[in-house]
Amino acid sequence: MSPHLSSLQNIATRLRIESIRATTASASGHPTTCLSAADLMAALFFADMRFDPKNPQHPEADRLVMSKGHAAPLLYAMWAEAGFIPRERLTDLRLFTSNLEGHPTPRLPFVDVATGSLGQGLAAGVGSALNARRIGSDYRTYVLMGDGETAEGSVWEAAASANFFKLDSLCAILDINALGQSRHTELQHDLETYRVRWSAFGWNVISIDGHDLPQILDAYKKARESKGRPTAILARTLKGKGVSFTEGLPNWHGKPLSKEQMDKAIEELNRRLTTETGGDKSSSGGDKPPGLSIPAPPPARPEPAPMPLTPPAFKLGDMVATREAYGSAIAKLGTADPRVVALDADVKNSTFSEKFEAAHPERFYQFFIAEQVMIGAAMGFAARGAIPFPSTFAAFLTRAADFIRMAAISGVNIKLAGSHAGVSIGEDGPSQMALEDFAMATAQPNFVALYPSDAVSTERLVAEAAAFTGPVYIRTSRPKTPVIYDNNEHFPIGGLKVVRKSDKDVATVIGAGVTLFEALKAHDQLKAKGTSIRVIDLYSVQPIDAASLIDAGRATNGRLITVEDHYISGGLGDAVARAVAPAGLTVHRMAIPEIPRSGKPDDLLDKFGISARHIVNAVTG
Amino acid sequence: MSPHLSSLQNIATRLRIESIRATTASASGHPTTCLSAADLMAALFFADMRFDPKNPQHPEADRLVMSKGHAAPLLYAMWAEAGFIPRERLTDLRLFTSNLEGHPTPRLPFVDVATGSLGQGLAAGVGSALNARRIGSDYRTYVLMGDGETAEGSVWEAAASANFFKLDSLCAILDINALGQSRHTELQHDLETYRVRWSAFGWNVISIDGHDLPQILDAYKKARESKGRPTAILARTLKGKGVSFTEGLPNWHGKPLSKEQMDKAIEELNRRLTTETGGDKSSSGGDKPPGLSIPAPPPARPEPAPMPLTPPAFKLGDMVATREAYGSAIAKLGTADPRVVALDADVKNSTFSEKFEAAHPERFYQFFIAEQVMIGAAMGFAARGAIPFPSTFAAFLTRAADFIRMAAISGVNIKLAGSHAGVSIGEDGPSQMALEDFAMATAQPNFVALYPSDAVSTERLVAEAAAFTGPVYIRTSRPKTPVIYDNNEHFPIGGLKVVRKSDKDVATVIGAGVTLFEALKAHDQLKAKGTSIRVIDLYSVQPIDAASLIDAGRATNGRLITVEDHYISGGLGDAVARAVAPAGLTVHRMAIPEIPRSGKPDDLLDKFGISARHIVNAVTG
Repeated sequence: MSPHLSSLQNIATRLRIESIRATTASASGHPTTCLSAADLMAALFFADMRFDPKNPQHPEADRLVMSKGHAAPLLYAMWAEAGFIPRERLTDLRLFTSNLEGHPTPRLPFVDVATGSLGQGLAAGVGSALNARRIGSDYRTYVLMGDGETAEGSVWEAAASANFFKLDSLCAILDINALGQSRHTELQHDLETYRVRWSAFGWNVISIDGHDLPQILDAYKKARESKGRPTAILARTLKGKGVSFTEGLPNWHGKPLSKEQMDKAIEELNRRLTTETGGDKSSSGGDKPPGLSIPAPPPARPEPAPMPLTPPAFKLGDMVATREAYGSAIAKLGTADPRVVALDADVKNSTFSEKFEAAHPERFYQFFIAEQVMIGAAMGFAARGAIPFPSTFAAFLTRAADFIRMAAISGVNIKLAGSHAGVSIGEDGPSQMALEDFAMATAQPNFVALYPSDAVSTERLVAEAAAFTGPVYIRTSRPKTPVIYDNNEHFPIGGLKVVRKSDKDVATVIGAGVTLFEALKAHDQLKAKGTSIRVIDLYSVQPIDAASLIDAGRATNGRLITVEDHYISGGLGDAVARAVAPAGLTVHRMAIPEIPRSGKPDDLLDKFGISARHIVNAVTG
Repeated sequence: MSPHLSSLQNIATRLRIESIRATTASASGHPTTCLSAADLMAALFFADMRFDPKNPQHPEADRLVMSKGHAAPLLYAMWAEAGFIPRERLTDLRLFTSNLEGHPTPRLPFVDVATGSLGQGLAAGVGSALNARRIGSDYRTYVLMGDGETAEGSVWEAAASANFFKLDSLCAILDINALGQSRHTELQHDLETYRVRWSAFGWNVISIDGHDLPQILDAYKKARESKGRPTAILARTLKGKGVSFTEGLPNWHGKPLSKEQMDKAIEELNRRLTTETGGDKSSSGGDKPPGLSIPAPPPARPEPAPMPLTPPAFKLGDMVATREAYGSAIAKLGTADPRVVALDADVKNSTFSEKFEAAHPERFYQFFIAEQVMIGAAMGFAARGAIPFPSTFAAFLTRAADFIRMAAISGVNIKLAGSHAGVSIGEDGPSQMALEDFAMATAQPNFVALYPSDAVSTERLVAEAAAFTGPVYIRTSRPKTPVIYDNNEHFPIGGLKVVRKSDKDVATVIGAGVTLFEALKAHDQLKAKGTSIRVIDLYSVQPIDAASLIDAGRATNGRLITVEDHYISGGLGDAVARAVAPAGLTVHRMAIPEIPRSGKPDDLLDKFGISARHIVNAVTG
């Protein structure tokens, strides 16, 4: 064996040893899934990828997404082998005091997106590869996937998108060890069926023995040479490879070795080191591998600085749907900031992201009707420095709820835009009405949730969302609503607007989106009868301006009434109630109380209890 | 043309006319997508399927799932043609007063599951076809799909599952009209790529001209004859077919024809009737088609009546994880009731659904790591009379959030089971921790949400869930917890248990699952210092026992403290707050305040503020 191969094999063995050692130390984790991928990863990291072991976030470095996140100990061992993590820290795995968590999260600088919910990594890889194109870099993106996770439909969404975008810088490495958590996988070692499926989705497919280093190296080389389409390397492997009593055996998933088993395994692996290199017996090495050096990425090029934005240019009283203002706003933002990209799922003419496409076709990405890969790709974009705005009907963002959950865990800088909120969409019926989107978004404690009511606030909030670092959700509405704010008004995240106020207000009505206008109608009807109410536009649902809400409650007899085009749980009412509870204030919640149905928008607002008439009754009743 | 074909063609033309008429009447809707599928549906409904036009829910009738739900007017026209809907009612489309909604819902007796969120119908079809096997029926299941929706990964999950289960009674009909909402589809009319993909997933594939009736009829015949695998009929069609100014043209999606356009279109279609049959010029016909008769299904066989359940048989103080008690409970339930089926996503040894598999292997369904098809299949099962319990980690139920949303709209009788709730799972880290599952489940107003704390209540609540008609979510936990209830205790849905109570209670602490035991510890620590608290087990989060909570609040100085292993939004705290707000009571919420991390379970409960120590501080502070 050449010194090169012998070094790689030693590295692979050390990765195995460290994966076992760390999981035994933590008495939890998944050693055998690390063992199946160790050869693939040793060859990738130490004989193919270019990166800077001192700066994992280098913008020109090749990326590795560990989609099979339960192989985290392997990933950590790789970065220890590269010198980034002190080797002795690897046994801190899964401790509260360590960032070496059970599944990788971006608390570690070499992790772009959190993994551990299977089937998400390839979608992030699509975003990462598209970002390379955006910045004109030739960095490559690798995704290590388990075989089991290819059962997830999101994988096939990502496969189709990668083909559509001709992402030849993307390489999926499938660790086909044939064993899932609870049983063998559906396809076991049927590499031919895998080949047929990935080929059917337009990929360049290379099938190899995933424990044969020359085959592995050759596959990476061929993947690099493939042009115009992504590559899938199908690697036949054995779970638990390298340890005789785990190799290819079921019932080892998620089970660390006992201390005795570990000693036996390491002894066996150490022999492998001895025999095959004749050299280094140490498994706690840190030796420089002979004949191996990690190629450095080219110098980083800073992103162009964004230009300042001009104020909105709407006229008071003009009728503009917030979804339409959203489209204009991202188009304008895209002109000012080249990091901004827009993604859509075949509804660009409803979300008005088509305005961005018209202005910046090179930064608009069509994902057809595949919301999971759209959000996953946005995560990959965000992790590489872009500011992605993926948009679809808010109802269909629920399709990507698990991606949104993982986006929150990742803390990535994505800006979700959901249109067609609530019953105010009318005739299309409940399947198209988002009535649980705030429940989904605000459940994530680090998500910002915004809900503009007019065109000015929409444009301002889109700019606020872009300027904020972290995940943001923006909800827009279908109906046209009047412009009520001056173009110079500001809408900081975490604020609210008191839009009607007097010294004699008997109650505070809090709305946003279409219900703000119902509240304003109610205000006028009540005023005509001599009753004053305060009206608040709660454009920032999370974070929320608790102090102002408490002030308003105290100034209006403790009467706070929320009215929202959302189900009662997890929406504006709950958010306000949480904010004012410490002051001893309660909230009267008006929301959609049941599964709605088709009808005319105004009829539905009234039938489901959130129209001006109902607000008037709530105030006077 | 034979009288048979001529009749079918007339029917297809009438379906087109009615689809146009209805959407123009409602001034909204999707006529052109109805036109592309009219020939496929005329042939299916009037020359292939067996059903009872007077009883659409006949248990032995063939099923049709209209996965492309925006073609609802076509479906309604078919049932009018079959005589179930009065033809003159079709123009009530999308009125608030009509059940002919914009997208089909089970408010109509011929709709098994609501559609309109694309890519879900095939998964429901998998469940429907599996149910035929459960009841020993040879009814067939047809799913009409759009081409655009095949971009959804859920379609490929369903394709893989149908292949795995060898569902030859399942037939997908792809209406490949090449036009999506905002642009042409990714694959346009590339039937060869469709063929390669469906073949790769193991399907029998038949490609046809979707406007050629003899080809269509022949395809249905061949699909019927195919054994051992499902069939996909790939039908090349034109959107807007039959009307010269819409046929194959973009920018018609979701646009009704104007009155003038309608008149022109109907005139054109009427000419077609005239020319091709030489007979009936009436488009508001209701004539019996010559040579056509709908085959009647065989007599319905009633499901065996369930046997009574014996009480649980646990010992007080025994340590049993609720997830494990869940497994025993569904196994027991399955013995008593043959309608009960269990589904899992490669975590049966974690959710303990493997206990059901061991007892009832013929009613256990493995979906590997594909949560969307698992939930979709459960919906199909439920729609056909089974009582499905799909289980996975609660965190991964979010993968199917949009299916759960549509299950709520459908009102189907599914029983979701999510295990591994909250930070109490420990070392695996946030990706595996469900902390937003109640936000997801309780957002749906017709969902029951249950959260047992011990083995007895788990078994009782599983039985309650099965006895209840409608969607239920059950949350279970990873750690072992002591049995605290007597085996004869009952746990009605909508109830709660006051587990500690005295006349001197200074506050009420409300927990469930692992936090109930933290509350009990806090109770004991406080008692040792001379302070009494009331402790409530809120096992039914939705519906909720508002009266008892208000009573407890009033009896304990108005101090209600919730403590939950869930994020703060959308969980127990919000549910209790909504319940007690009308009484002027507020809630002090203790919940997971931020994205958590790996660590030991007890450490995490403490670090994230929901341990006994924090409860004691909240009471005394």
